[in-house]
Formats: sequence, C-alpha cells, structure tokens
Amino acid sequence: MKNTLLKLATGIVLGSALTACVNTAQTSNNAALRSTGDMGVIIERATGQVQIVNHTNKDVLAEIDGLGDLSHASIVYSRDQRYAYVFGRDGGLTKVDILKDKIDNRVIQSGNSIGGAISQDGKLVAVSNYTPGGVKVFNADTLELVATIDATELVGKPKNKDGSSVRSKVVGLVDAPNHRFIFSLFDSHEIWIADFSGHDKGEEMKLTKFTDIGYFPYDALMSPDGRYYIAGLFGEDGMAMLDLWHLDKGVTRILKDYGKGDKKLPVYKMPHLEGWAMAGDYAFMPAVGQHKVLVVNTKTWQQVAEIPAHSQPIFVMAQPDNRQIWVNFAYPDNNTIQVFNTQTFELVKTLTPGPAVLHMEFTPRGEHVWMSVRDSNEVHVYDTQTQELLKTMPSKSPSGIFFTNRAHHIGL
Amino acid sequence: MKNTLLKLATGIVLGSALTACVNTAQTSNNAALRSTGDMGVIIERATGQVQIVNHTNKDVLAEIDGLGDLSHASIVYSRDQRYAYVFGRDGGLTKVDILKDKIDNRVIQSGNSIGGAISQDGKLVAVSNYTPGGVKVFNADTLELVATIDATELVGKPKNKDGSSVRSKVVGLVDAPNHRFIFSLFDSHEIWIADFSGHDKGEEMKLTKFTDIGYFPYDALMSPDGRYYIAGLFGEDGMAMLDLWHLDKGVTRILKDYGKGDKKLPVYKMPHLEGWAMAGDYAFMPAVGQHKVLVVNTKTWQQVAEIPAHSQPIFVMAQPDNRQIWVNFAYPDNNTIQVFNTQTFELVKTLTPGPAVLHMEFTPRGEHVWMSVRDSNEVHVYDTQTQELLKTMPSKSPSGIFFTNRAHHIGL
Repeated sequence: MKNTLLKLATGIVLGSALTACVNTAQTSNNAALRSTGDMGVIIERATGQVQIVNHTNKDVLAEIDGLGDLSHASIVYSRDQRYAYVFGRDGGLTKVDILKDKIDNRVIQSGNSIGGAISQDGKLVAVSNYTPGGVKVFNADTLELVATIDATELVGKPKNKDGSSVRSKVVGLVDAPNHRFIFSLFDSHEIWIADFSGHDKGEEMKLTKFTDIGYFPYDALMSPDGRYYIAGLFGEDGMAMLDLWHLDKGVTRILKDYGKGDKKLPVYKMPHLEGWAMAGDYAFMPAVGQHKVLVVNTKTWQQVAEIPAHSQPIFVMAQPDNRQIWVNFAYPDNNTIQVFNTQTFELVKTLTPGPAVLHMEFTPRGEHVWMSVRDSNEVHVYDTQTQELLKTMPSKSPSGIFFTNRAHHIGL
Repeated sequence: MKNTLLKLATGIVLGSALTACVNTAQTSNNAALRSTGDMGVIIERATGQVQIVNHTNKDVLAEIDGLGDLSHASIVYSRDQRYAYVFGRDGGLTKVDILKDKIDNRVIQSGNSIGGAISQDGKLVAVSNYTPGGVKVFNADTLELVATIDATELVGKPKNKDGSSVRSKVVGLVDAPNHRFIFSLFDSHEIWIADFSGHDKGEEMKLTKFTDIGYFPYDALMSPDGRYYIAGLFGEDGMAMLDLWHLDKGVTRILKDYGKGDKKLPVYKMPHLEGWAMAGDYAFMPAVGQHKVLVVNTKTWQQVAEIPAHSQPIFVMAQPDNRQIWVNFAYPDNNTIQVFNTQTFELVKTLTPGPAVLHMEFTPRGEHVWMSVRDSNEVHVYDTQTQELLKTMPSKSPSGIFFTNRAHHIGL
C-alpha cells in the first residue's frame, strides 16, 4: 500500500505542496493500519534503545533511540495500549508512543530506579527508586509529578553528600485493585500500601505501613487476581505475604525454608519473583542457588515437590494454558531453557537458544513464546506445543520483552 | 485505505488537490489516534447495528449499520484486536473494522446460527449453526470457507424441504489451546472436538466425538486456562464435563442435581453458562428456575452453599479481582442487578438500572462495569468499588457488550 501511494505520488505530483500532502497521508496511513493488540516492546539494554514489534507477523516495526541506561529496565502499558512506560536504571521514565514510533515524553525522575507500575484506571504511573529511596507517582498523560513517597530514613547511616538522610531502597512495586500501589522497603524491612483511590476526588493519598516484615525484601510478586502480595527475603529464609483482602491480619510468613539456607552452591543471582508460575493449585518457583524448581501448594504454602533442573533457575514461567513451565538459568548456564510438564513434572525438552537467554514472553493465548538471547543479539520465537524454533530476529543485546496484553492484567 | 486513495485520486483529477489532501490527513489522523486496547463493540439488536466504543473515555466512537438479525448476537476479536467478528442469528458473519468504522467483509454462512469462536493463532473463525446443523470454519482474513463440519443426522426426523436430512443443532462452541474448537450437539447429545493444529501444514482437520454425554446440551463454557469444557443439559439434571488434558477419561457427569429438578417455579429462561464466575476454589452459578446463586467447589464439583437472590439469575459474573459477583435476572425481574461478596456471600447492593438489563462487561482490570439496559435504550457504566453510576449513554436496544481484551483470552 505504501508502494501504491508512492507510485501514485510519483506519477502524478511534482509540485511541492502536493508532495507534502502525500507525505501526510503516508504517515497517517501507516499509523492507521496498526492496531495495538498484537504489539510489544523489546529492551535493547546496551544501546538505550527499544524495538517495537508485532507478534502476529513476528517482525520489528521500529527502533527508538535515546532511552538512557536500560539495564534491568521494565515496561508497563497505558490502558489503551498506545503508550509503553519504560523504567530505566538511571531514573529515566520514558513514555513511548507505539503508534507513532517516537518518544512522547521523558523525565529523569531519580538517580537510580528499579521498575514501576500503572494504576488500575491508567491515570497514575509509579516508579520505585533506590536513590533517593522512595516512590514517585506521575500523571500518566503528562508525566507531571503527582506525589513523592519518601522511604524510611536509615538511622545511623552516613548522610548523603547533600546532607540529606539516606532512605531505604524501594523494590517490588506493583499495582493493586482500587488504585493502590504496593511496594517493599529493602533496607528498613517494610511493606507499604499507597492508596490513591480518592485521587480523582482530590483526596490525599493514604499510606499504610507494615513493619518488621522480614530482613531485606528484594523483590515481590502479586497474584493474578490482585489478592496476595509476596516478597522474597534476601536476609533470611522464608517469604513475607500480605493478603490484601485481610489487611487486619498483617504480613505473615510463608515457605519458611525458601531462600539461600545452608547453600552448597554459590548464588549467582537471586531469582526473579515476577517469573513465578501459578498453575492450578501449584506455584512453580525458582529455588535459590540450587538446581531445582520448587513446587508449592498455594493453599497451604507448603512445598510438595521439587523438580531437578539444569542449573540455578531465574525465571519460571507458565504458559497461559498452564500445561508447561519454561525455565531459564543463571550465569554461567544461561544458554539453556528447560520445559517441564506441570502435571507430571517431567522434563519435556531442553533447548539451547544461545548465550544469555535473559527473558521470555508468551503470546497472549500462549501459542508462541519469545526469548531474548542477549549475547547472540537475537530474539527467538518458539512454538510452545512443539518447542520448534519458528523465527530468529536481530536485536541489540535484548533483555526484557513486553507484549501489550499486559495492559489488561492486575499486578504486573 | 481504499477510500483514502480514491479521494486522493479524485481530488487530483478535479484540481482540488489540497481539499482532498486535508480530508485525507484528517481521516487518517483520526484513525492514527486510535489504539485498540480500550475499545469495544455493543450489539444494538433491534436495528442490526453495532456501536464502537471507548472505555477509557466512556464514549461511542461510531455506529455501523447493516449487520442483519442481531438477536442473541455475540462477538470475538482478531488477535490484533482490529476486527470484531459478529455472529448474527440469521447466519450472518460480519467482520467489522473497528479502526476504520466500517464493515470489512460479510457472509451469510447458514440459515440460523448461534455464536462462534476464533482459533488460538487467530487464523480461523468457527460458527455454530442450528440450520443446517453443524459448524463452518472460515479463514479469518478473507472469510473464505475452510471447512464444513456436518452435525449428526437425526434418524427418523422428517427430511428438510430440499430432501436433505435434518442434523443436530450445534451450541456451546468455544476455542481451546492448540487450534481446536469444542462444541456440543443439542439433538444428538454429543460433544465434538475439531482439531485444526495441522492446518498450517496442510493437514486435515481431526474430529473426536464423545457420544451419550447427556440429554440436550444447551450451552457450555470453558475454564479460563482452556482445560475444562462444561456443558449444561436441558433434558436432565447434572452437567457434562470434558477434561481436555485427559481426553482418555471421556465425558464425566458433575453436579448431578444441577438443573430444573422438581422445580416449583416456571423457568423463564435457561441461564447463560458463559456467565459463570470462577473465583478461587468456587464457581458461582445461576440456579435454574430458582431464586438462588449456587456456590460450587471446583475441586469436588459439589455444591457447598447457595445464596438467596432477587429472582432467577441469568448471568453470574465475577469482577476481574474476584471480590464480588454481579448478577442479572430473568424476565419479568430483569430490571435489577445484585452484587454479592465472594467471601462472605453477603449482598453488597441491589441496583435497578432499568428495564431489561441483558448483559454486563467489566473493564479489563475491573474498575468499571458496563451494562446494557435494553428497554430504556441505554448503556450504564458503574464503578465496581462503590457501585455508583458514572455515566449513561444512549444505545438502541443494546444487548451484548464485548471489550477487545477478549482477544487475549482462551475459550471466550
């Protein structure tokens, strides 16, 4: 169609007014042909770029520059799926327009940040920061600052250079129903809830704090219905769980043996909790520092089985149909993926996509899975049923892959 | 695009090139500003029209004519969310382009049809037909016929006027993982699976038939992970369940008392099974002909409680966060909605939106619910947390409301 327009233009028009006119039509036509349901964004961490992709045609639509330091970057989407909010490690919050292939807005909101979330109504974007420790909340349309939530001051720590107190780093920030954000304070061992449900009516944000939740929460996840917030603990074994339907019960401890324990192997990397697969009554979790996937009953929060695996798992992810889990591994064994059956726990297949398989993303109804193979500068697409490689695409040091159906999920 | 090009061409030929140019840019810009994540389609059953809506702004973007008989019409979406496939009662299958606000294609594929589904890869659209009884499968791009699956001939029935045998009506058609369609044969008491997983490689469709599944399956649902297919039975109590992970076990019977039983009240309308709410370990089901919502344990498939309700429930729908169920009712009590807590089973609120509340649809992350109030020609939007009415929009005899996030769900 592009070609048709070009031919038409070339054939008929020589005057500059008409050329401009045809250009307008061209740009707009390209945009008009794009719907957002089968799109996604891939982080190219080394170059501060992102790729905008289409997962029906398995192709790259555009590449956007200028997003800063994208190590460990993550993304949430506006509720219409048009904008990807990219949370960079350097405190950059970049709003990318995936219909127009350009940066819509960008702010440097802190010195060092780690992830973010978008409110249920799509009006607020929150970012969790290491430096200065806390959460900043922005108007999703304009990126204007709406609220600053300072984390707890660390008493006894040397002051910052500017004389201010050092505050706890904030991690594991997720959205929860009714326009709330939940997050963990790494250094002060807390979980906080910031409730913005009255924001539309001009009411103040309400903060609820749970203290002494366990040493050094380092990451967290939310159950898909937005009920359970579960934080992993770096400083001790076990996990901290908050039932958002029963806040009066406070934070409880689950899985008391989960963690580094008396580890026999060095822990190369703490696993990502967002990768937890919940399938039926089971959660499939990466063991810390051991070559195992743990199977946990989500009613009792007791471990019921363990699955021997290739190496130390990082992400353990369930297909949307829950029939298989896909597991990647820590360095130096990170060239491998294993697929397990969620009913029999049997190994279905071992794949070796290439050096440094960092992330996986399933298509919304689960027929394919995309993988970033960082050190071969490739993104691979596999059929989940047959585990066949369907396509390889070039990408510069790809890390996170995020499809737009995330816009419609709670707690991502 | 066709129109744009025509306008451009016409404009240039007539010498009013710049006028054409401005029109082109305008049209295209409007389209370019539309992403599909927060859109939906509402059936206007009496006029053969649909409204295209946006659920962020709560407004109607367009109205499309010429879709035929839309009583009991339903919709599925293409995997990119751009096209709504509308299944009309008159056998019409209409593909509506919600970016361009127009009918992209339309075929009359049977004499009388009831619902349809789209395959996991988005390439096939299937329609279940009453007359002639069976399923037709179409190429989702072109609406070309790919396969006709004739239902079982009804031995002993008088022939059709054209001399052909009468075949069973087909109901409860859903998609399942790995490019399969599952459906029930009302008159011949069967459940069939049509497997199109080899379609891309030119392989034949494979049909698996389960017979004697119970008398007169009239509707069915699929669990959200695509595992359990459950059909309601019009001719006897109980339901028929097929575990797609264990086809060797065949169809089993669950909930042996579910149905009309020794009913004390006339059954005004058999409830819709697609409306079943599954929240945690419970399914909340409309009782047949009784003023109750049934609470069933989905592990044991035993009824564990019943909730007294305003009248005979039709749809029982869970909020995406599972905290509340919303229930509408059969004629003549269909001006009312009740909201119940899924933990305590307590009545939260009774609303009376107006005459004939036919359908409800939650926004993807559940902050709002839209309702069609047919006989006041209105669509209402409520806040799920406060149950406050937020907006009323005009709509001509609205029935089904379908948001585009359905594109990403299994079994809808």
